[in-house]
Amino acid sequence: MNTTSVYLERAVTQFASLPGIGRKTAMRLVLHLLRRERADMEAFASTISELAANVRYCSVCHNLSDESLCPICASTGRDHTTVCVVENVQDVMAIEATQQYNGVYHVLGGVISPMDGIGPQDLEIESLVERVKANDLRELIFALSPTMEGDTTAFYIFRRLPDINIPVTTLARGVAQNDQLQYTDELTLGRSLVERRPFTNQH
Amino acid sequence: MNTTSVYLERAVTQFASLPGIGRKTAMRLVLHLLRRERADMEAFASTISELAANVRYCSVCHNLSDESLCPICASTGRDHTTVCVVENVQDVMAIEATQQYNGVYHVLGGVISPMDGIGPQDLEIESLVERVKANDLRELIFALSPTMEGDTTAFYIFRRLPDINIPVTTLARGVAQNDQLQYTDELTLGRSLVERRPFTNQH
Repeated sequence: MNTTSVYLERAVTQFASLPGIGRKTAMRLVLHLLRRERADMEAFASTISELAANVRYCSVCHNLSDESLCPICASTGRDHTTVCVVENVQDVMAIEATQQYNGVYHVLGGVISPMDGIGPQDLEIESLVERVKANDLRELIFALSPTMEGDTTAFYIFRRLPDINIPVTTLARGVAQNDQLQYTDELTLGRSLVERRPFTNQH
Repeated sequence: MNTTSVYLERAVTQFASLPGIGRKTAMRLVLHLLRRERADMEAFASTISELAANVRYCSVCHNLSDESLCPICASTGRDHTTVCVVENVQDVMAIEATQQYNGVYHVLGGVISPMDGIGPQDLEIESLVERVKANDLRELIFALSPTMEGDTTAFYIFRRLPDINIPVTTLARGVAQNDQLQYTDELTLGRSLVERRPFTNQH
């Protein structure tokens, strides 16, 4: 697309560099921005510079944070002896949204995936091993994706901790809430049958 | 989503305010930005502030421009006596991309659409009428969307120019290049039949 403005062109190129945004969508977004008040556009720009200037990784759990310690690691109201190992920042948000967890996290920054060239050294596994050894934990929870890569990563970490003598757990796998059984894949359904639980009238 | 960073939250809110981008997509885009070098993020922010500071509407044709006159209106190589009326900036780009037009444009900024509350006073129609009256034009081309709103707008402008004595033309309508006839809608096919053209062996 030939635009009549160099600045427009540059902004479109920047937006189009984001994942899943092509040049036509980028143009639509930039033209939308241009219809706003100038102050609103400046606000958009400054939130991004402030993001660049202020957001860093928590020194303990590697979650995104405005301080060197994230609010979860800094909280006195949370159980710092239970560590939940997750793949990425979105997983922390997803688990927080359940309001079922009061421990702390360890964000690996991905899972081991030889296909994508991601090995253990690319992830926060060393820091996790040190964290487990240095602290008097009570439980280590693997909340990784129920995929080959997630399982491999959990297994790798488990093998790096041969002397661990606290419960190491992983997320329950089974049929999803409100799913229809006939559409559940056979692996999941089979596993949920093998790992069936005592029935209670409380859900 | 509860994030552990105020700046992250703000950036997500800004991205989610763009059309077609929900909070989950916004989060994905912002996290993608965060994985970049800080200088790259600053560059992203500054293209948006520069956009806000520099881009304006051309004083003649109302296309987007970095100067008070857009490159097309400022060009000496173009035919300034032929004016093509279009709905928006993207339409200018689309026509420029055809490389079949060497005249100038007039960008209305939309079409008359009572359903959306857009009347003639919301568009650059008055400035078009004045432009046609004040200049010695040779042709006025309506390149508006082939819709009820586009037709209404063209008709409205035409009625506002009762003394016009130059050719007023509109885009040809018919079957699209490489379309399959069996899938062409009957209105378009019917019209293309009524307005059939002498056959030549040049396409």
